[in-house]
Amino acid sequence: MSVADVKALTFDTGGTILDWHAGVKAALTAMGQKHGIERDWTHITNEFRRRSLGKILNLGETEPPAYNFDVSHRMALDSLIEEHDLGAFTDEERHTIAYVTPHNLKCWPDFPATLPKLREKYMCVSFTILSFRIIMDTAKANGLNWDAVFSCEAIGKYKVLPEAYKAVAKYLQLDPSEICMVACHNFDLDAAKACGFTTAFVKRPDEWGPEGPPDPEPNPSHDIVAGTFPDMARQLGVTI
Amino acid sequence: MSVADVKALTFDTGGTILDWHAGVKAALTAMGQKHGIERDWTHITNEFRRRSLGKILNLGETEPPAYNFDVSHRMALDSLIEEHDLGAFTDEERHTIAYVTPHNLKCWPDFPATLPKLREKYMCVSFTILSFRIIMDTAKANGLNWDAVFSCEAIGKYKVLPEAYKAVAKYLQLDPSEICMVACHNFDLDAAKACGFTTAFVKRPDEWGPEGPPDPEPNPSHDIVAGTFPDMARQLGVTI
Repeated sequence: MSVADVKALTFDTGGTILDWHAGVKAALTAMGQKHGIERDWTHITNEFRRRSLGKILNLGETEPPAYNFDVSHRMALDSLIEEHDLGAFTDEERHTIAYVTPHNLKCWPDFPATLPKLREKYMCVSFTILSFRIIMDTAKANGLNWDAVFSCEAIGKYKVLPEAYKAVAKYLQLDPSEICMVACHNFDLDAAKACGFTTAFVKRPDEWGPEGPPDPEPNPSHDIVAGTFPDMARQLGVTI
Repeated sequence: MSVADVKALTFDTGGTILDWHAGVKAALTAMGQKHGIERDWTHITNEFRRRSLGKILNLGETEPPAYNFDVSHRMALDSLIEEHDLGAFTDEERHTIAYVTPHNLKCWPDFPATLPKLREKYMCVSFTILSFRIIMDTAKANGLNWDAVFSCEAIGKYKVLPEAYKAVAKYLQLDPSEICMVACHNFDLDAAKACGFTTAFVKRPDEWGPEGPPDPEPNPSHDIVAGTFPDMARQLGVTI
């Protein structure tokens, strides 16, 4: 099996397609200005991401998940509000930051025009820890059309549990090697690779804003390493 | 709550969107001609549907489903082959009838142009007992784009079990009354209605070919009764 045998692309969506840092930071900054509060919004934004990820990765390992990523977002924000003395934020404002904002994130500008080209050759699905509604709402906001949305919310096993990757291979009715996991994170690709997936690392150096991503260097085991989505498409033999 | 509060349309897809009768009958007829065999292909087609439905509806009630609709199709065909003395059909030909054909069914001609209009106002998802791959493959073959595919294959509870409808309402993060189940079958709509969904019956008089559908008259409890998809769209306030 090789990249030439790939029939489906499964896209991590959270950071790989959506620019959560810019969106969440803008929402926090705007809310701070409204209340005349200054904080290190860049830091708080990244903590929001780090904590919500911490609450969702591997969820479902021992018992069914009790919540989805929307709830995880809200829990992360509430803990940050307490620590950073942001009690002035109203409940509606907290909902705007933790729910409305993630459902309206912009995607990286090199993706929307590339997706339809990839879909001509491959099944292209979102395979995500995000809730269905985040994917559906952001798809609408960005004009994306997925062939299907595989949210860990329905699988009941969150990345990086192997059951999540195996469930997606089953739904796609493909050998894992015929599926290419696309992500900007080694942890996701490594887990997919351990289940037999082909893997494509797409660099998103701005995912964490000026701080930079925590693990930016692709592991050498990945089948494709690309700087941009058009670059990845070309490596897959798709004309851009 | 009323039709004006609906935010999402969940489409039964098997008979409501896809013309399984024409597709399966054509495949059976072609295979018969190849072998010089004459049978009542109309009848066998409907039995194929009836039996595959019988093997999938309510699956998962007491234990996790052991198979999906593709397997159900194949089991239905194999039983028909035995009964109708069709042993001349090769394994590849059986695969063509039971797998390739359902994955390439044409949809009713009034649907493809209506779907994008509906998507401007509503989330439009396939909510189906069919496998993910049947929905993804037929969407591609017919140029459809769904906002998401909710297959009972992932839910683990098949229609008309209430858990299936409740799972979809949960994923959509909507009150069931804000979701309109769209189908040409009372059994599906009645089950949705029992879970609080709004319901739209769209007539598909040709679904079972010349035999006609077994239950063509909409129950009076449905919120919308439409003769065509453009008709349903207009009743939802969508300009066609």
